[in-house]
Amino acid sequence: MREVGIGIAGFGTVGGGVLSILRRHADDIEARLGARIAVRRVALRDPSKERALDVPRSLVTTRLEDLVEDPEIAVVVELMGGTDAAFDLVRGALLHGKHVVTANKALLAARGEEIFRLAREKGVDVYYEAAVCGGVPIIRTLREALASDRITSLHGIVNGTTNFILTAMAERGEPIGTALAEAQRLGYAEADPTLDVSGGDAAQKLCVLAQLAFGARLSPADVLTEGIMTLEPEDFRWGREFGYALKLLAVARRCPPAEGAPAGAPDQLEARVHPSFIPQGSLLAGVRGAMNAVVLQSEALGASMLYGQGAGAMPTGSAVVSDIIDLSRNIVAGSPGRVPLPPEKPLVTLRPHAEVRCGYYLRFSVRDEPGVLARTASRLADRNISIAAVQQREQNDQGKPVPLVIVTHEAREADLRAAIQDIDRQPGTLAPTRLIRIESV
Amino acid sequence: MREVGIGIAGFGTVGGGVLSILRRHADDIEARLGARIAVRRVALRDPSKERALDVPRSLVTTRLEDLVEDPEIAVVVELMGGTDAAFDLVRGALLHGKHVVTANKALLAARGEEIFRLAREKGVDVYYEAAVCGGVPIIRTLREALASDRITSLHGIVNGTTNFILTAMAERGEPIGTALAEAQRLGYAEADPTLDVSGGDAAQKLCVLAQLAFGARLSPADVLTEGIMTLEPEDFRWGREFGYALKLLAVARRCPPAEGAPAGAPDQLEARVHPSFIPQGSLLAGVRGAMNAVVLQSEALGASMLYGQGAGAMPTGSAVVSDIIDLSRNIVAGSPGRVPLPPEKPLVTLRPHAEVRCGYYLRFSVRDEPGVLARTASRLADRNISIAAVQQREQNDQGKPVPLVIVTHEAREADLRAAIQDIDRQPGTLAPTRLIRIESV
Repeated sequence: MREVGIGIAGFGTVGGGVLSILRRHADDIEARLGARIAVRRVALRDPSKERALDVPRSLVTTRLEDLVEDPEIAVVVELMGGTDAAFDLVRGALLHGKHVVTANKALLAARGEEIFRLAREKGVDVYYEAAVCGGVPIIRTLREALASDRITSLHGIVNGTTNFILTAMAERGEPIGTALAEAQRLGYAEADPTLDVSGGDAAQKLCVLAQLAFGARLSPADVLTEGIMTLEPEDFRWGREFGYALKLLAVARRCPPAEGAPAGAPDQLEARVHPSFIPQGSLLAGVRGAMNAVVLQSEALGASMLYGQGAGAMPTGSAVVSDIIDLSRNIVAGSPGRVPLPPEKPLVTLRPHAEVRCGYYLRFSVRDEPGVLARTASRLADRNISIAAVQQREQNDQGKPVPLVIVTHEAREADLRAAIQDIDRQPGTLAPTRLIRIESV
Repeated sequence: MREVGIGIAGFGTVGGGVLSILRRHADDIEARLGARIAVRRVALRDPSKERALDVPRSLVTTRLEDLVEDPEIAVVVELMGGTDAAFDLVRGALLHGKHVVTANKALLAARGEEIFRLAREKGVDVYYEAAVCGGVPIIRTLREALASDRITSLHGIVNGTTNFILTAMAERGEPIGTALAEAQRLGYAEADPTLDVSGGDAAQKLCVLAQLAFGARLSPADVLTEGIMTLEPEDFRWGREFGYALKLLAVARRCPPAEGAPAGAPDQLEARVHPSFIPQGSLLAGVRGAMNAVVLQSEALGASMLYGQGAGAMPTGSAVVSDIIDLSRNIVAGSPGRVPLPPEKPLVTLRPHAEVRCGYYLRFSVRDEPGVLARTASRLADRNISIAAVQQREQNDQGKPVPLVIVTHEAREADLRAAIQDIDRQPGTLAPTRLIRIESV
């Protein structure tokens, strides 16, 4: 029986999942593939550490070179995380003509361009289903199923930690501190949750997805990114009154070329990660807890959605193994490069964030006095922002702040920002206005 | 530039979609594929018919042999429907060593075994993403993404027509006749809707899905199949009171081997299509109108769902084109048979329908007299069926039928049937008891 040799670098949760799936399903995989997948090397940082899954001593190494230089290894599986040592490993593997499977979205978001260029030069494959939304087969779907379609927008719940927190806030009315602490206690959030709650993790994933879906070349710094830490239970309550659920969404939307651009100029792409109000009855609103989902709109297919577990040893491990099997199929069939890597040149340009257009929920903290609504409404009208709905709570103590909530029709981000600046400067405004964008998915 | 020659048989809605996508995205497809897809022949039944998309006269033929025998055609695309002429075409194409793309679930459900055997013998591929749930990439996901996982259950809304009708009944309280007429007027239901409303179409799709997901060898006659025509607005109202939405589901569930089976006996598979109550808050409950969705439970991945348009020229056409591209990749790379066809021998056996276990909603029509609930409850208890909830409407006219609704805990289908038979024979029972199964997806 033919063998495909693989080397695994990094042996945390996901690495354990990968090895356990490869072992448990070895016969099945062999039968389907017509070849055996043989783990030839496992690179660990600390081989003395106790691990749930026993790896034979003879396979273990601390030197990444042992994977890169082993002629028996055809596929290097990078599960180390981080962007420095992981990049060196991937680069070394590609230079040695090895295929790569990685679950490392940070690496792809930061250095994907170099990695894909090198892979093209060497005629080898880079697979990364596990890098985004763990067990949801979104990468495969974008690379293959939608190969004959043109995607117009992508809306994703791509970070399980924040969705877990927002679900708790929505369903139990908890303040964010309580919900975050609970997520940490249950292992859904890290001790330092910054990357998740800031939206940074979702922005990295959006970069990877936007490259495949739109041919965009983005780095996380290009993405308009707002986290969830400023959300208050009150925002959920107001949202509910207007018929909205509140989710942290990663959004990419194809827009026509900028006005006045030369003929043949590429489309523009909005790229943003922020808390979003979405209709309560929508499918994305029903995505609870740590689950992930991505909604695509495309010309031929219309709306479609993929949903599943975004993280965890087994879902992510399963995605890694399906990549290993897929690559092994290419190796057995002698057809590497079967599915092309992301395009070399970007096919869209980033739309300036100032030009983003959507509906906005604005929560003002204004003194409860006559004329406050009229004054606020005129500042919005000055910037051509039209109001869809208003809610104002009555309050008895004159002079104390009263919440005033306005939902706008679609408006231009720059106009909205300017209007808020005007309003926040007025003497009757007691705290900075809160803004949440509204998406109609 | 290398060319991959294809021949298309059947040129209805989907054929038009395929050709229009191939034309519109020709450059894109060429760039990604490194080859041109050339339509060499289009077989039509009636070439004189007016068609929206112009096909050059020189390509048109009425003889299917012209596709099968053309050495320039590498891929035959079967879009004729039906099982007789379509089978002859597919068989002929395979015998000539051509790959096949088909959107024909009826053909696969009825004669898939012969088709796959022939394809294996000839070393060619059969792709059929469009055969089930049009634009939802469920076939690809089952064949590839879940290659390293073990699926334990599948629940699908796989028929858009019936989901459209049930959505109208649920949201507007319409009787089924009105909802069906509306679906026909809007083109969601055929003039003869039997195949859809009987559950027959969904049963065919379940056979195709169960083969890939579980290695089952089923024909539609093996599937426990109940349609939607006996559903009444009242069932939706009762369901809502118990917290349920009502959907026509295709269900396949892996169960352990039969009791007393020899060691190493294969797992059993429940296979059924019927109206099902599901929790109102579940994702499947949110699938409205003519949309399709499939929920999978698997060991590594846990729950996952794919959602999208199940029918229509463009979604289905797009699925056909993604198959053509995928096959062309194999042809260009010289790697046919890259992803194995469904297994030759069945890996599971059909579980007898009498052994199905689920919760049941029972709506009795009984005379409004003292003791009726006690009597009904004892008949259920006699068969070891335990009651989860009861609702009884008060009525003033003594002797008239009064609805009595009972929801059971999980019970065995055979026991349930026997109990209903007992109850329906009692003198106080005025009409046959209505039964709807409850699924916890």
